[in-house]
Amino acid sequence: MKDSKYFEQYIATTPDFPKPGIMFRDIAPTLENPEVFQNCIDAMAEILEKFEFDKIMCADARGFLFGSALAYKTKKGLVIARKPGKLPRPGVSASYNLEYGNNTLEISEGSLKQGEKVAILDDVFATGGTCSAMMKMTLNSGATPVVGIFYISLPDIGGEKVIKSIVDMPCYSLVQYSGE
Amino acid sequence: MKDSKYFEQYIATTPDFPKPGIMFRDIAPTLENPEVFQNCIDAMAEILEKFEFDKIMCADARGFLFGSALAYKTKKGLVIARKPGKLPRPGVSASYNLEYGNNTLEISEGSLKQGEKVAILDDVFATGGTCSAMMKMTLNSGATPVVGIFYISLPDIGGEKVIKSIVDMPCYSLVQYSGE
Repeated sequence: MKDSKYFEQYIATTPDFPKPGIMFRDIAPTLENPEVFQNCIDAMAEILEKFEFDKIMCADARGFLFGSALAYKTKKGLVIARKPGKLPRPGVSASYNLEYGNNTLEISEGSLKQGEKVAILDDVFATGGTCSAMMKMTLNSGATPVVGIFYISLPDIGGEKVIKSIVDMPCYSLVQYSGE
Repeated sequence: MKDSKYFEQYIATTPDFPKPGIMFRDIAPTLENPEVFQNCIDAMAEILEKFEFDKIMCADARGFLFGSALAYKTKKGLVIARKPGKLPRPGVSASYNLEYGNNTLEISEGSLKQGEKVAILDDVFATGGTCSAMMKMTLNSGATPVVGIFYISLPDIGGEKVIKSIVDMPCYSLVQYSGE
């Protein structure tokens, strides 16, 4: 499996975007390079091989960019966690604190069935806000979040503590930026 | 290849969403069913086999849900057309009229190279607004839009005429809702 240094070459960093103090990690170079994108999705799928799960839940909008290919590759169903007002049949919702602001996510009515196992996916794992909202929606649907998978993580922000306060679920990322 | 009737079973319709008079086509059931989603992406890839192209461009946010898996399956680069303010390094942009409202899309600086061939993708083809914005961004980057591919099309709205006024590009969809 390709390591963090490999994928880092295909992530562009813009300081102070969208707000001062934020180092924005731009995934466009990863997506635009077919070989790198194949390696990225294959590496995520390899991590998920160790887990039994029924569905992948991914967050609006950049999570969709990994969730779709990973659902295709792993032959699992994809549940989309959308920003408010986007779903015609909203079911459960959950609010969260973002690295820069607040937001709410919701999933469609009936997207998850009682007892299903869910892999939680997003592009970046920072404060754990988006991830914890997806975990809460999973639990409120009678399903279980079994693993978190992210392209990028910022392990020094403390998101893992937020996650573990909900469910002690293992979390994986392909790229880690420490010291942020 | 599965036909329109097959996929229609996995599209939920909500009348008058998000505005009165709009029949909202909800793709969640397609995404949530792994077999249907595999068939959907495989059918799109089969259509694209007849075309030579370098990249797939898809529109924020629901286009991401098909673009990611299709880029993975076809081993092509993925270019994301995002809503304003989302990209740290915006390059070209284009405005369009949506079925319900107006919007602008932009792609990152350097996402397309001179001479590249681009498949344009979105979840729904209706007025042709989103598609024409993606075609204009492609042309303004010195690249060529060679084919349009959509999960759903509403052929009676007249979007094809809008497309053909820009480039006479063939457009395909897996599901057609006529009479709307």
